[in-house]
Amino acid sequence: MEHRIHNPSLRSRIVSADEAQKWIRDGMNVGVSGFTRSGDVKAIPRALAEYKKKMGDTRRINLYSGASLGEADSDLSSQHLVGRRGPYQSDRDTRGAINRGEIQYIEQHLSHTAEWVRNGEPIDLAIIEAVAITEDGGIVPTTSVGNSPIFVQQAEQVIVEINMAMPEELIGVHDIYIPEKRPGRSPINITRVDDRIGRASIPCDPMKIVGIVFNDEPDSPSTIVPPDGETEQMAGYILELLEHEVKQGRLSERLAPLQSGVGSVANAVFNGLEQAPFDQLEIYTEVMQDAVFHLFDSDKVSFASGCSFTLSREMRDHVLSNLSKYRDRIVLRPQEISNHPEVIRRLGVIAINAALEVDIYGNVNSTHVSGSHIMNGIGGSGDFARNAGLTIFVTKSTAKDGRISSVVPFVPHVDHTEHDVDILVTEQGIADLRGLSPRERARVIIENLAHPYYKDALRDYFKRASQGGGNTPHLLQEAFSWHNRYQETGDMRQRELVLL
Amino acid sequence: MEHRIHNPSLRSRIVSADEAQKWIRDGMNVGVSGFTRSGDVKAIPRALAEYKKKMGDTRRINLYSGASLGEADSDLSSQHLVGRRGPYQSDRDTRGAINRGEIQYIEQHLSHTAEWVRNGEPIDLAIIEAVAITEDGGIVPTTSVGNSPIFVQQAEQVIVEINMAMPEELIGVHDIYIPEKRPGRSPINITRVDDRIGRASIPCDPMKIVGIVFNDEPDSPSTIVPPDGETEQMAGYILELLEHEVKQGRLSERLAPLQSGVGSVANAVFNGLEQAPFDQLEIYTEVMQDAVFHLFDSDKVSFASGCSFTLSREMRDHVLSNLSKYRDRIVLRPQEISNHPEVIRRLGVIAINAALEVDIYGNVNSTHVSGSHIMNGIGGSGDFARNAGLTIFVTKSTAKDGRISSVVPFVPHVDHTEHDVDILVTEQGIADLRGLSPRERARVIIENLAHPYYKDALRDYFKRASQGGGNTPHLLQEAFSWHNRYQETGDMRQRELVLL
Ligand SMILES: CC(C)(COP(=O)(O)OP(=O)(O)OC[C@H]1O[C@@H](n2cnc3c(N)ncnc32)[C@H](O)[C@@H]1OP(=O)(O)O)[C@@H](O)C(=O)NCCC(=O)NCCS
Ligand SMILES: CC(C)(COP(=O)(O)OP(=O)(O)OC[C@H]1O[C@@H](n2cnc3c(N)ncnc32)[C@H](O)[C@@H]1OP(=O)(O)O)[C@@H](O)C(=O)NCCC(=O)NCCS
Repeated sequence: MEHRIHNPSLRSRIVSADEAQKWIRDGMNVGVSGFTRSGDVKAIPRALAEYKKKMGDTRRINLYSGASLGEADSDLSSQHLVGRRGPYQSDRDTRGAINRGEIQYIEQHLSHTAEWVRNGEPIDLAIIEAVAITEDGGIVPTTSVGNSPIFVQQAEQVIVEINMAMPEELIGVHDIYIPEKRPGRSPINITRVDDRIGRASIPCDPMKIVGIVFNDEPDSPSTIVPPDGETEQMAGYILELLEHEVKQGRLSERLAPLQSGVGSVANAVFNGLEQAPFDQLEIYTEVMQDAVFHLFDSDKVSFASGCSFTLSREMRDHVLSNLSKYRDRIVLRPQEISNHPEVIRRLGVIAINAALEVDIYGNVNSTHVSGSHIMNGIGGSGDFARNAGLTIFVTKSTAKDGRISSVVPFVPHVDHTEHDVDILVTEQGIADLRGLSPRERARVIIENLAHPYYKDALRDYFKRASQGGGNTPHLLQEAFSWHNRYQETGDMRQRELVLL
Repeated sequence: MEHRIHNPSLRSRIVSADEAQKWIRDGMNVGVSGFTRSGDVKAIPRALAEYKKKMGDTRRINLYSGASLGEADSDLSSQHLVGRRGPYQSDRDTRGAINRGEIQYIEQHLSHTAEWVRNGEPIDLAIIEAVAITEDGGIVPTTSVGNSPIFVQQAEQVIVEINMAMPEELIGVHDIYIPEKRPGRSPINITRVDDRIGRASIPCDPMKIVGIVFNDEPDSPSTIVPPDGETEQMAGYILELLEHEVKQGRLSERLAPLQSGVGSVANAVFNGLEQAPFDQLEIYTEVMQDAVFHLFDSDKVSFASGCSFTLSREMRDHVLSNLSKYRDRIVLRPQEISNHPEVIRRLGVIAINAALEVDIYGNVNSTHVSGSHIMNGIGGSGDFARNAGLTIFVTKSTAKDGRISSVVPFVPHVDHTEHDVDILVTEQGIADLRGLSPRERARVIIENLAHPYYKDALRDYFKRASQGGGNTPHLLQEAFSWHNRYQETGDMRQRELVLL
């Protein structure tokens, strides 16, 4: 194990996870590695939760990560160890505590957190999962980079969790670049997805490393939802659109670098790419899911840049034991870089993300059910949607067996405005909103995307609203009536209109 | 006059405005110069409107500009000559036609329009106001750059309006840089506000210039609203905040490059800077208003980069006849560059923009009164708000003599989400939202920003909403009840609560 610590003077700092958890003090701002359940610290959060379970404890920490953690989120939240949490989570227990007002959720665009920390939000302690520590103290991350570089740079103290289940072949996969403080910052010199502009490990003054803990747990696997008829249909619409863009000369046969959010449609689109007439594709994304590696295997993708791998158990084991096959074609970057507006706009990324619901003018709710209750968080969807060359959101037209329409008069929470959305897709069809006015968008959204259950009611709302005039005509008395009806009756459908 | 056409072979293309307007055909996409009433084409739109008034005409054009035009918007809209309009306007007649559904409004982030055109939205005809045409056909813009470079690059045909009221000393003030098509685009190499990365004129194949018209009208002046007690108070809060940031070491005494939207608070803040303990300030903005030149005169500002001058009559005459005093300290850029996320984030701009209303969680409505009726458009506010180092929105706490609260439970249109807003200011106080959870934000917004008329009602809404739980607790049945009450009774106040 010790050979993973290339700087021998640091070997004396090896401690147990239980010892390390005792250094965590009440009220600390703790920055941890971890992005979409990958490369998260594992042993210390568990030791902290176990200590509390056994001994009782009044500590509460402010927990900042890259994005969602694996078991740690649930372990810590269910033990009431978290006071504040940011910038993203997707855990049942954490979500519950946030919605009850017990955890203060500092939900941020994933590219924003590093600036926030750099501008002065203190990080008392960084806990980072690593493959190894280099001679000069450099920390080599594992399967995600997340916010680890900025946490390490700004932290008072650093604890490293070396994960022996992570192969040393991961060394060299990362490209760690940290933008300078302002003023005097330089351009981020990425002009191709495979550009490398940084170093292979996170620079760290060895003096700051106060402890080193070993673990050997694999990442908790992602649960891939296999494509169903509807997600395949949605993927089909997107692939047709892309073919159309190529025909129109707006994209080449290599398309443009692809981003996709987590979820089943994204996976279905990527699966669909295996048969599609595109070649030498490139990925510039946050999360590389199983489908990316399938596309490598079928030689469809030439390079993938991301911030983490989030893989099923089988794919994880396959990738980690066959890294030499992939390592020249992938790079993992800090989320400040994978999600940076500068790079996303320069590359003209094609961004595909999922929505909870959309409204008739194209505003998107990705986060808050009924406007109040958080699901996960905005994550990187805003970084990509605002800056991409082509911005696509997908959602099934209904949820809860048709009782909820995901196309509504007015979304009760806006994550992405009408200006940030080019294309919307449901299993009913596709709406190309580019260059349309709001009233024109409303017609296309209602006709192409809404479920037949809800089409007439949407047409009726839009027609009556338009009589009052406006650029985005609304009837504010009724705008949320669909959501209210669902809360009261468990079904958004209006009986009369369904029977029409 | 002809000496302004440095390429003699082009002198034969001089025509009258009336002749030129006849080349405009029904259904054309016309891209014109003009940004915030400056540097807009004047003679040809007027000739078009006059022709229609006299002769009748069935033509309708799609009119795309930099931002708002001077007289042209009103001339063309009131003559029903406009079918589609984008990306921004601020004209009474145009707004009316949009809200009646007669003009389709393609409202866009001001940095997005150039990408949209580059990606294939055709420009049939560009009409550009110029100081001069260079030897090689280069078009030197006047008091704004706007989208003229991309319109000229993409247009089939170009008409130039040379404005003799614009001094030739403007030559050299502009920095025209047009990002490449993707893939293969390079970084925008601006790392300081005074960096010049382009050329002094808009490149144009002389063959595309089908006509040259002369005019000699000055820009229509901006009507500066002088500071009142309330705007001065708001400016005071912002200046205190900036001093605090300097003390905390988050900003230097040079602050960071400043952006401000049009309007009275922005002007009041800039006026306040004359007395403030900051030095060698820099501006990186869209619009340079009067206050920028006052700050030059008092030696507070060392350099200003913008996309247009929008000046009062007096200041306009002063600046244009004393250009030599200012020309080494200013640059005018295309709006794609003045508003580019890449540059704004790199520089860490301090962005100050006005809102119509804000909600208790920090979402901002800048555009749609009652959610339906457009005021102006989102303009560049989203480009700056999302990417700035410090994002400030200002609004008076009430409108219409207190009958409207500009702090509401739920904004009926979202332009800027809770994630894009750091600081909110009304004449009642300032709310620093950085690092706060939504429920914490609600308390600060209600207590610091709301008018006493409305505070209790907001507290009551938030308290009852919180009982239902959630990350951003809402009562959807009531969320818009304030706006409904205003529509029904002409006053948002609830009688019982006002009397408390
Ligand atoms: C929006 C998001 C929740 C959709 O996730 P998904 O897995 O594709 O969506 P699903 O259709 O499986 O729906 C998830 C849940 O929301 C429910 N749901 C879907 N639409 C809904 C709606 N309109 N109203 C209420 N609930 C809805 C589903 O029923 C399901 O509930 P369940 O967990 O009880 O079964 C997810 O993409 C997300 O968190 N996005 C925000 C962050 C992001 O975009 N990241 C990508 C870039 S990083
Ligand atoms: C939001 C915006 C309209 C505010 O402009 P302003 O001149 O500072 O605001 P004012 O307080 O004078 O208000 C303008 C009008 O809106 C009305 N108004 C203000 N708050 C209101 C509210 N909450 N509800 C309804 N009307 C409101 C005012 O009464 C006034 O009406 P009037 O014209 O009938 O007198 C303006 O800043 C804008 O268009 N912004 C969007 C674009 C932008 O931000 N550009 C800057 C970067 S480019």
